Amino acid sequence: MRQRAVVLLSGGLDSSTCLAWAASQYDCYAISFMYGQRSTSELEAAKTIAEKYALDHRIINIDLGNIGGSALTDHNLDVPDQLQDGIPITYVPARNTIFLSYALALAEVKDAQAIVIGVNAVDYSGYPDCRPEYIDAFTKMANLATKAGVEGHPIKIETPLLHLSKANIIRLGVEHGLDYAQTVSCYQADADGRACGKCDSCRLRHQGFIEAEIADPTRYVN
Amino acid sequence: MRQRAVVLLSGGLDSSTCLAWAASQYDCYAISFMYGQRSTSELEAAKTIAEKYALDHRIINIDLGNIGGSALTDHNLDVPDQLQDGIPITYVPARNTIFLSYALALAEVKDAQAIVIGVNAVDYSGYPDCRPEYIDAFTKMANLATKAGVEGHPIKIETPLLHLSKANIIRLGVEHGLDYAQTVSCYQADADGRACGKCDSCRLRHQGFIEAEIADPTRYVN
Repeated sequence: MRQRAVVLLSGGLDSSTCLAWAASQYDCYAISFMYGQRSTSELEAAKTIAEKYALDHRIINIDLGNIGGSALTDHNLDVPDQLQDGIPITYVPARNTIFLSYALALAEVKDAQAIVIGVNAVDYSGYPDCRPEYIDAFTKMANLATKAGVEGHPIKIETPLLHLSKANIIRLGVEHGLDYAQTVSCYQADADGRACGKCDSCRLRHQGFIEAEIADPTRYVN
Repeated sequence: MRQRAVVLLSGGLDSSTCLAWAASQYDCYAISFMYGQRSTSELEAAKTIAEKYALDHRIINIDLGNIGGSALTDHNLDVPDQLQDGIPITYVPARNTIFLSYALALAEVKDAQAIVIGVNAVDYSGYPDCRPEYIDAFTKMANLATKAGVEGHPIKIETPLLHLSKANIIRLGVEHGLDYAQTVSCYQADADGRACGKCDSCRLRHQGFIEAEIADPTRYVN
C-alpha cells in the first residue's frame, strides 16, 4: 500500500508541480486555501488540477484578510511590478505556518505520513518561511504537536522544489505529465485565469520556461 | 511604553485567566476562534470579557469542522462524561498549532512581542500540544517563520498557567480581578452559557474552586 500525503495546492506553477510529483509516489489529498486573495483564478486552477488527478480536494476558507499586512490580501497596498531586496511586500504574515498547520490537521485525521509543500529557497529567498531551517523547525514542532508524532509515527514534510531553479521545477512537472497551461501564478490574473505578464511571479515563471527551453503555455492578457 | 501581546481567548476559565494576567503587564490584543464548536456560549463569554477589558478583539472563523476527527467539532461523536487515559477524544487535531499560527500572524502585523496561551501541563497532559516541549518547538519555528524573528526581534510565547493546578489558576485570576461567572468552560453549555456540570471540563473546573476554597460562581443548568 502506498503512503498517504497531504499536498498544499494553490493552483500555481510550484504547488502544481509538487502535486504531479507527489501523485507518482503517494496517495494524495489536496488542500487549498481561500484567504482573501485579490484573484480567485489560481484557486479555480487548483480545482481543475485536483479534478484531473481525481483527488479528495478540500478548500479551506481562512480569515487572513482580517489580519492584514500584505499586498496580496490588503487591497489598500499596491502589488509591486519590480523584484525587491529583502522581504517582499507580497509576504503574507505567517502564511505558510497557517497553511502547514491546517495540512497537519488533515494529515493527522487521514493518518497521512507526509505533507508536500512547494517552498523554494532559490527564487523566494526573501520569504523567511520558505527556508529549509524553517521547514525543519516546523517538522520538529509538528511531531511534538500530534498524536501520531507522540505515538512514534512521525510525519515528514516533503519539499521537492526546495533547491530547484524555476527551469528545473518546470522540467520536473513536465516529466510528471503536468500541463502548465492549467496553472496560474500571476498575482493579479483576470477572471479567465490570464496572467498580467508583469508582476514578480509572472516574470519568474516566464524566465523559467525560457531557461528550460520549453515553450511557455501560459495564457497572458496581452 | 508597555510591550504588546496577542492573547488567545476562548472565553473559558484558563484563557480568561491568561487575559487577566496579561492585561496587568502588556497592551493586549485578544484573538478568538469559531471552529464549528457545538456551543457558541464560550465565544459569547470571550466577547463579554474582551469588552470589559476594552480590547481590540478579533474573532477568526476557521474551518476545523471541515477537517473533522474530534468529538468537539464532529457532531457524530459523543462527548464523553468520564476522564480517559491517553489522548482524549475531545482532542482537536493540530488545534493549538492552528490557533498559535493565527496569533503569530496577528503578532507580526501588530509588532507584538508576545503571544499568551493558557496551556496547562497538569490537567491536560493527554493533549500533546499542551506540553512545554511543544511550546518550545513552536517558539523556535515561529522565530524562523517571521520577519521579526529573522530581523532579530524574537517573539516569546507566554504560558502563565503551564504548571499551575486548576485551584492555583483560579487564585491567579481572582488576584487579577477576573469575574469567573463571565467565563464558560463547559463542552456543551446551553445558549445562556449555563454549564452541564458533568463533562470533563466542568468536573475539573468545579474541583478547582473547591480546592482553591473559593465559592464556585459558575452558572449550572441544574
